[in-house]
Amino acid sequence: MSDIEIAQANERTEMLPITKVAETIGLTPDDLELYGKAKAKLSYPTLKRLAEKKPGKLVLVTSINPTPAGEGKSTVTIGLGDALNLRHQNAVIALREPSLGPVMGMKGGATGGGYSQVVPMEDINLHFTGDMHALTTAVDTLAALIDNHLQQGNALNIDPRRITWNRVLDINDRSLRHTVIGVGGATSGVPRENSFDITVASELMAVLCLSKNMHELKARISNIVIGFTYDRKPVTVADLEVTGAIAMLLKDALKPNLVQTLAHTPTLIHGGPFANIAHGCNSVLATQTALALGNIALTEAGFGADLGAEKFMDIKTPVLGKTPDAVVIVATVRALKYNGGQPLKELTTENLDALKNGFKNLKKHIENMQRYGRPVLVAINQFVSDTQAELDALIKACADLGVQAFASDVWGQGGKGALPLADALVAALDQPGEFKPLYDVNKPVKDKILTIVQKIYGGADVVYDHKAELALKTIAQNGWDHLPICMAKTQYSLSDDPKALGAPTGFTMHVRDIQPKLGAGFLVVLTGSVLTMPGLPKRPAAMNMDVSDDGVISGLF
Amino acid sequence: MSDIEIAQANERTEMLPITKVAETIGLTPDDLELYGKAKAKLSYPTLKRLAEKKPGKLVLVTSINPTPAGEGKSTVTIGLGDALNLRHQNAVIALREPSLGPVMGMKGGATGGGYSQVVPMEDINLHFTGDMHALTTAVDTLAALIDNHLQQGNALNIDPRRITWNRVLDINDRSLRHTVIGVGGATSGVPRENSFDITVASELMAVLCLSKNMHELKARISNIVIGFTYDRKPVTVADLEVTGAIAMLLKDALKPNLVQTLAHTPTLIHGGPFANIAHGCNSVLATQTALALGNIALTEAGFGADLGAEKFMDIKTPVLGKTPDAVVIVATVRALKYNGGQPLKELTTENLDALKNGFKNLKKHIENMQRYGRPVLVAINQFVSDTQAELDALIKACADLGVQAFASDVWGQGGKGALPLADALVAALDQPGEFKPLYDVNKPVKDKILTIVQKIYGGADVVYDHKAELALKTIAQNGWDHLPICMAKTQYSLSDDPKALGAPTGFTMHVRDIQPKLGAGFLVVLTGSVLTMPGLPKRPAAMNMDVSDDGVISGLF
Repeated sequence: MSDIEIAQANERTEMLPITKVAETIGLTPDDLELYGKAKAKLSYPTLKRLAEKKPGKLVLVTSINPTPAGEGKSTVTIGLGDALNLRHQNAVIALREPSLGPVMGMKGGATGGGYSQVVPMEDINLHFTGDMHALTTAVDTLAALIDNHLQQGNALNIDPRRITWNRVLDINDRSLRHTVIGVGGATSGVPRENSFDITVASELMAVLCLSKNMHELKARISNIVIGFTYDRKPVTVADLEVTGAIAMLLKDALKPNLVQTLAHTPTLIHGGPFANIAHGCNSVLATQTALALGNIALTEAGFGADLGAEKFMDIKTPVLGKTPDAVVIVATVRALKYNGGQPLKELTTENLDALKNGFKNLKKHIENMQRYGRPVLVAINQFVSDTQAELDALIKACADLGVQAFASDVWGQGGKGALPLADALVAALDQPGEFKPLYDVNKPVKDKILTIVQKIYGGADVVYDHKAELALKTIAQNGWDHLPICMAKTQYSLSDDPKALGAPTGFTMHVRDIQPKLGAGFLVVLTGSVLTMPGLPKRPAAMNMDVSDDGVISGLF
Repeated sequence: MSDIEIAQANERTEMLPITKVAETIGLTPDDLELYGKAKAKLSYPTLKRLAEKKPGKLVLVTSINPTPAGEGKSTVTIGLGDALNLRHQNAVIALREPSLGPVMGMKGGATGGGYSQVVPMEDINLHFTGDMHALTTAVDTLAALIDNHLQQGNALNIDPRRITWNRVLDINDRSLRHTVIGVGGATSGVPRENSFDITVASELMAVLCLSKNMHELKARISNIVIGFTYDRKPVTVADLEVTGAIAMLLKDALKPNLVQTLAHTPTLIHGGPFANIAHGCNSVLATQTALALGNIALTEAGFGADLGAEKFMDIKTPVLGKTPDAVVIVATVRALKYNGGQPLKELTTENLDALKNGFKNLKKHIENMQRYGRPVLVAINQFVSDTQAELDALIKACADLGVQAFASDVWGQGGKGALPLADALVAALDQPGEFKPLYDVNKPVKDKILTIVQKIYGGADVVYDHKAELALKTIAQNGWDHLPICMAKTQYSLSDDPKALGAPTGFTMHVRDIQPKLGAGFLVVLTGSVLTMPGLPKRPAAMNMDVSDDGVISGLF
């Protein structure tokens, strides 16, 4: 059965009213704003009350670098949550909201798979509770207000060539990457170049995800720099006097969404910034709420541990005010063999040499995560083609590093497939050891970047393009150097070369540009070419989709 | 108090759970999909069941041509609904969904005013249940799929210069009226000109509003012509093989939304196509549902009776399968005096001459509506500055035409302000008289246009630009001439000159172009310059808006 068929069969027969799921974590119907029978947002008074509660234990789920072989980080997070609740641990999951754009392009959901899924999966993968649409509207309304300001006399003296605020759509649309707008004469705007990004790549998504309440959201929005004047002064949303309007459009999007796994584990799905151009974690508010509602909060970060987890540790946790108690790294035998040089089409064949060779990638991520001072475990997301010899070799290689690894069949068995991992995790949460951040944010920008490149990526040095050096000057002049670093890098390699698999060393990172994001409160360091608007493939997944006369969706995944 | 203050005070103290409102018209919680406590969508099985029910009586509310003085058609519709229910008539209201774009520009809601409002007004005027966002996503996803088709080899041989499918945003953004997309090199699309419209101006909005179920929606979507090949053959959504994907994105948007007036009258708010470029009525499904749930269904059509009501009669009712039992025309003393030449700033001063002179506009709309064969009443939406002499003169002028007119203070008194109007309306519903359509759709296109121009607008003749003549050839070649006519004309005048107030006669209409809309199933006849993407004013309303730390909105209206 496909993921959507498993989900639909279970949704029909097994899904609980979301009010019942909420009841299991002490929430009443008054705490909820329902969206249909299976989705709800948490109200402002409820969020305020929960913010005061003593937090549970925090577990971060991350992974090796993504490969075409598939890793299944969300699937493991969901299965592990279900396993913890089979052990009566009162686990609550916090995940990112999927972007709709990629859904139309390539088959593959963002709500787990097999018997480890969050439901209702069709809703979550499509419009859900409208958060993405609210963000799209807010980003594009701000853009319209900026262009209207130019049109109506430009009192702020904004340089149209130096506007850094892009428009967005939650759609994979390569033809909007580079556009010319405002043509067609004097009544149709000021002509200028303009780019559309995918919604999740906008700074406003990062802003939403780093705000613990409306007060903080407004403060961050007001600080957003949308461009520069002709005399190179930054122009903020506050200067445009539209902070309130933009925040108003996000009034409901700020509230985390409650859904359930197929096994009824309460799951907060909220916020999903890109893990390359932004910090790649679900909202601070969702994680904080999961910590308040559960004894254990399980959350994940995007892409591999070099991108998502590093940013989780160094960008998200200072805002959250809570550091992880343990880290789980997801790996697959298939992906490690791919890292070890075995071609994609041969991954179902046993190959212990390729596995051993590709293990370097997992080893580097284990060492990186251990650096933060808390216990690290490995979840081997099991595939039917994995041989016992391969699983044994991988578990032994981890053990040699002092790390417990567990083959977990969460796709086929749900929580039951991850019970040994769950038990080991519970034991690890109480181990002694202090969390240590990677760098001191008050160090110079180049020092912070070098620390990440050398300690996390395994590189030797960093070189800066002229554009990046100019950006560093602007950053220094405006006193923005104390901000944490958000690396924009390929997710496919620890280096900035997407083809360098395994654990490359000795390389020099190439910084093209540095974009200050004053609302999000970090400096985006662009290395290599980072795409902020994906395209569609030759035969888009949209061509397989349908909806019956009764409203039943097919071909989604 | 402002509209938002009245609404908020009542929402806090008076608003019923929507389940309770639903109960008054025989719906159970199982019929509803809740969006918070005060909004709900009706489920597919419920809609299917209601489609079989015997319909109640249908009342169309329309108005004179809009002026800057304000008419208040929605306010009257809402107040009249409340008045009918004070008389225990079991009235259900069906209204259009407001567009978000204009909200950021000019003060003024689309949910009535004073004590005749639908609530929760902030939600309805902002993201509501996400219908507009779903439409935006569907329109732009189709556009991305078209541009991706060009990029990936253009197997259908589409001429990029002849793509007629525009992108949309639900934002007033003049700088997107004319754009160049697909620049930036070989991997970023095929360069071409492209326009963005406001979402409500898209054909897909009209398609949604004319579909009674998912089956019809899919059929209409598949018929949409998105452009032409290099050899001038039409290209449809069916040719692109993405009908299912686009329909899937509208699965929930197709379901009508239930809310309530301040007096708890059940109100369906669903769909809102532009009344110039499209047919300007709420969805057929909402009206059909209101007819099934109420003894009387009250609905409105956009702009003046020359645009909205004519299209209601000749485009919507054939699809609905039910013609109106009575028509109410909304007028104000202020607007008629403005039509009669009194300047905007002097409208609070009594001026019986200006009123008499401006009455010509109302008189023409009365005669137009009477042509359809059913009783016509006039609702005078009362303002505090109206003098008794003015009201008496207006009522007498209507009586001279055999039409009852009633001064109605729905803003200040709600339903209580419209009781005499409600009583007269109830009596009118049972008057004898057959509905007569304006034209036979099987007549030639030019004949149908001339009929509308001569009989409704009061014009003498029609001239066609070269582009319009070419379009007529394409229409004839493809056999599209049997479709009804959707005039795109300025709303400010009965003619195509926005400055010609009152009731101009003898003029020649100028047709620039004719756009076949095969999904909506009508031919859009463009006269004058019709703006499909509004702009923002020098000081946008957005600058007055705010949201408190507790999520309370201010400055919206």
